[in-house]
Amino acid sequence: MESSSCILSRPLRGIIPPMITPLLDRDTLDAAGLERLIEHILAGGVHGLFILGTTGEAPSLSYRLRYELIERTCDQVKGRVPVLVGITDTSFVESVNVACKARDAGAQAVVLAPPYYFPAGQAELREYLKHLTPDLPLPLFLYNMPSYTKLVFEPETIRAAADFPGVAGIKDSSGNMIYFRQLQDLLKDHPDFSLLMGQEELLVEVVLLGGHGGVCGGANLVPKLYVDLYNAAYSKDLSKVQSLHKKVMQLSNNIYNVGRFESSYLKGLKCALSCMGICSDFLAEPFHRFRRAEHKRIQRYIKELGIT
Amino acid sequence: MESSSCILSRPLRGIIPPMITPLLDRDTLDAAGLERLIEHILAGGVHGLFILGTTGEAPSLSYRLRYELIERTCDQVKGRVPVLVGITDTSFVESVNVACKARDAGAQAVVLAPPYYFPAGQAELREYLKHLTPDLPLPLFLYNMPSYTKLVFEPETIRAAADFPGVAGIKDSSGNMIYFRQLQDLLKDHPDFSLLMGQEELLVEVVLLGGHGGVCGGANLVPKLYVDLYNAAYSKDLSKVQSLHKKVMQLSNNIYNVGRFESSYLKGLKCALSCMGICSDFLAEPFHRFRRAEHKRIQRYIKELGIT
Amino acid sequence: MESSSCILSRPLRGIIPPMITPLLDRDTLDAAGLERLIEHILAGGVHGLFILGTTGEAPSLSYRLRYELIERTCDQVKGRVPVLVGITDTSFVESVNVACKARDAGAQAVVLAPPYYFPAGQAELREYLKHLTPDLPLPLFLYNMPSYTKLVFEPETIRAAADFPGVAGIKDSSGNMIYFRQLQDLLKDHPDFSLLMGQEELLVEVVLLGGHGGVCGGANLVPKLYVDLYNAAYSKDLSKVQSLHKKVMQLSNNIYNVGRFESSYLKGLKCALSCMGICSDFLAEPFHRFRRAEHKRIQRYIKELGIT
Amino acid sequence: MESSSCILSRPLRGIIPPMITPLLDRDTLDAAGLERLIEHILAGGVHGLFILGTTGEAPSLSYRLRYELIERTCDQVKGRVPVLVGITDTSFVESVNVACKARDAGAQAVVLAPPYYFPAGQAELREYLKHLTPDLPLPLFLYNMPSYTKLVFEPETIRAAADFPGVAGIKDSSGNMIYFRQLQDLLKDHPDFSLLMGQEELLVEVVLLGGHGGVCGGANLVPKLYVDLYNAAYSKDLSKVQSLHKKVMQLSNNIYNVGRFESSYLKGLKCALSCMGICSDFLAEPFHRFRRAEHKRIQRYIKELGIT
Repeated sequence: MESSSCILSRPLRGIIPPMITPLLDRDTLDAAGLERLIEHILAGGVHGLFILGTTGEAPSLSYRLRYELIERTCDQVKGRVPVLVGITDTSFVESVNVACKARDAGAQAVVLAPPYYFPAGQAELREYLKHLTPDLPLPLFLYNMPSYTKLVFEPETIRAAADFPGVAGIKDSSGNMIYFRQLQDLLKDHPDFSLLMGQEELLVEVVLLGGHGGVCGGANLVPKLYVDLYNAAYSKDLSKVQSLHKKVMQLSNNIYNVGRFESSYLKGLKCALSCMGICSDFLAEPFHRFRRAEHKRIQRYIKELGIT
Repeated sequence: MESSSCILSRPLRGIIPPMITPLLDRDTLDAAGLERLIEHILAGGVHGLFILGTTGEAPSLSYRLRYELIERTCDQVKGRVPVLVGITDTSFVESVNVACKARDAGAQAVVLAPPYYFPAGQAELREYLKHLTPDLPLPLFLYNMPSYTKLVFEPETIRAAADFPGVAGIKDSSGNMIYFRQLQDLLKDHPDFSLLMGQEELLVEVVLLGGHGGVCGGANLVPKLYVDLYNAAYSKDLSKVQSLHKKVMQLSNNIYNVGRFESSYLKGLKCALSCMGICSDFLAEPFHRFRRAEHKRIQRYIKELGIT
Repeated sequence: MESSSCILSRPLRGIIPPMITPLLDRDTLDAAGLERLIEHILAGGVHGLFILGTTGEAPSLSYRLRYELIERTCDQVKGRVPVLVGITDTSFVESVNVACKARDAGAQAVVLAPPYYFPAGQAELREYLKHLTPDLPLPLFLYNMPSYTKLVFEPETIRAAADFPGVAGIKDSSGNMIYFRQLQDLLKDHPDFSLLMGQEELLVEVVLLGGHGGVCGGANLVPKLYVDLYNAAYSKDLSKVQSLHKKVMQLSNNIYNVGRFESSYLKGLKCALSCMGICSDFLAEPFHRFRRAEHKRIQRYIKELGIT
Repeated sequence: MESSSCILSRPLRGIIPPMITPLLDRDTLDAAGLERLIEHILAGGVHGLFILGTTGEAPSLSYRLRYELIERTCDQVKGRVPVLVGITDTSFVESVNVACKARDAGAQAVVLAPPYYFPAGQAELREYLKHLTPDLPLPLFLYNMPSYTKLVFEPETIRAAADFPGVAGIKDSSGNMIYFRQLQDLLKDHPDFSLLMGQEELLVEVVLLGGHGGVCGGANLVPKLYVDLYNAAYSKDLSKVQSLHKKVMQLSNNIYNVGRFESSYLKGLKCALSCMGICSDFLAEPFHRFRRAEHKRIQRYIKELGIT
């Protein structure tokens, strides 16, 4: 299989967009949209592709559809960049099931947030990871996302897990930079362990101060902007950083800021991709796509921001 | 099928224990323990049986195991009491899938908490229920469990859903009696809508003041105690209520109070059932069974409380 | 002083309204309104009067005004019922200062929630109470109010404090009946320790099952309703309890339910008292009184509920 | 008065340490320690001094002591740097009272977090600021501290307040860099409005990307470290930034990380200052100083970090 020729660099560096999942309805992929979206993102020069994360609405999708998405994505990417597959689940067994599908389809890694129904303690999370990691057939990125899972992987838990087999890094979406700085400090003796930022507004400071990259939702729309910003920060070109960072903030303050629910980020992203003619804006329950008024605002922002 | 002879009374009244799921390991049912447990519970005179709730560790189980549990339980109960099946899921499609399995196996109703990963607004929850209820083949009980789902079904949402087809009642596990009183007030014109209390410590006041019954975890251990308490409260026998309520509080303050994590309720229940020789105390990840020291404390409490 | 003739019964039982503070502006008492309000409340047969609690907006008032309120209230009450004075403060020294003023003015007890800025642990709260109680010149009621203070007096902390000198009871406004039931269980060997409910919607179940009374905000408006309900519950007259409880719920679901902020309880109470001609509806910052539209709704509810 | 010769630059830039309050007991200043501490901090080249913040334990102190501290501090500083005085209070009137004392003593500005007992909405907070600012005799810095006040000044509220008379900037201690970036974006047309970071771990990224400085607790101990770091970041000297930032993280990960309560930051700071012979480590209730074991760990860290 071609994709097996793609090697996951250690540490993984750069921009790894968390791909939205193009849907025609709650249980039907927008297959044509998916192809266009993948090509659009890869054309921006990204360093990987992360599917079935929060941005990918994974928890809202049936397992059948998740499996179909994994296969179609790996087939389309054909090993040009590493594919990372979200396996977060409340059920240990289902997480392993998805990971095995990912390996079979040719993906390069899996990504896991804490099981998010029961309020496990840190000792229990550590044990959970200790049991889980030997059963996973691909390298694992941990995923800290407390606003959704209500559980934090505390720094010491990450530190312990970094020594489990196959644990390759963390994506932190807490927005808590102090947490991120603590991780950097705790893992300074693990140069292969990848520290990735899940909030695009904080990509710059992460890369300027030694982090490895970002999982930036906006890279669904304008992948090159984030790749350029990553490169500028990596090479410490502060004036370029500032002008590109300004564009990232404008996108964030506009596209993600329509509507009154916390889901405005996801709705804005999908709506914008639909306005760009890339894929459908359907969202699985419990969400729904923007209605006409919000759609118009997104359309206007896209024009103002020069996204095409 | 015999179970089809069992009719779900409206409103559903009495004690409907939330059954724990006996496990040999994370993906293997303790089938013999399950049989013993069901017979033990039914011998107490309960008015229904609720499987695959929070107490049943549903989110931690694979779908395969959940389906097996539904079938075995319905086969064992044989229509003696209504079987209610938890279908809570982050995925709309998977909730419908489990509901269809429940209908096929001969269950009488399904139970649903809000989808618990994405932070939906109340308008979105209402729409979610409006889309979901026509697809469900069995009557639906809503399940308010904010400490785990992080989403409340607000009283007005329940009030609206009460007019959707098949919505038969609510199990409230918020522990917020003011919420429960508001529901009673809002639904006073829906005499068929069942108002059930999910916290056994509050069963008495619910039944004394017009609620319909309780989903009491302790009824896994001593089902007759809760049935007697329900009957005493229903017939306003206050002195009997007080002496039985005292026993319920003793059980709660001891069996559920060992260990330092929020999971002590679940661990205590399973440990006690194991001490009683009914079924295995294995818990699926992210939890694990009590170690020896806690096991001894549970064993002592069981003796002190006269549970056998 | 006459008020010294008033003895605080142990345990304190019955209805102890948390009085609102009538204000002409943010630093001026509505002295005439205060006199009318006190006489209105006492005419209802209440068993005590609690000033400077949350309902009394204590944290929003200057110390000068708090001291004036203590003196005027004690002078007006003249020992007809015990006066309880809120001394909750972030500063230990200021709590003692207010307590001394209360004693000098002739009050019978003080009421204290946890210091609410710094996130103290339970061991620190226990030590705080151990240091504080010897410095207080009056019996102390603890006050559990986690939604505002963000700190709980955990049951074990209350249990320990019950043995400190002068600690006479607790007012629980958590709305968590399981907590209340645990307190009853832990303090069953302290028959003098008063267990009071701060949420009027839960007065009935508290008194029916062995609690001592309630601190009911609605008793500012219709004190006799709550006194009658207390008496009915105390004498286990369940049919009377149900008809009176229904009225309490109607008041709660209407008067406290206007406007979109959490402060609607306080605004509704003051607005209703103003409609009744008893006192001004001014609220200290950060709140403000209802505007015209909400005022009209309150006026209509008052008429519908037959409050005059 | 000499201090009147000190002018508050607009925007205020640099390092403004939040001074701890040296105490001999809960209501007695450590006056000699205070003198030593002020001279120690000023010797580091800081750009201002902030007293009576969270680090200064202001909410735990009596007003009498707060007033004494304001006077002694202004007398000691003698206008060498601007003195900022915390006036956060649940009571509007008391906030104004402290502000007037600050002006009388010769301070240059006041600092205010939201009133923190009642859960005000943003519209109410805006109105509160609109009423308060005309009554304040000194420029005002807003203070966002949601972990303690449980209320956020949302970005739009800050934006609106920036146009009220005398509002000079914000100190953000939320640790939420996305919030900080949003503020920068919203206030880009207010070049005089000072954007200060309250978390020293995030000083670097703030200053590198256009923020104005930091309110760094560690500057009580090693003021020059933070001043040097500020200067390096301001002049975009990235290699110097990285080596100094590493020292800041070491201090944070050690000195603030002893003991099991959230108060370990404050206890660690005071304990370290006591080890350094500068002032007493007494803390006002609800906290207490470190016991012997923690004291020894702090002493060891100080030695290891080379703080003297």
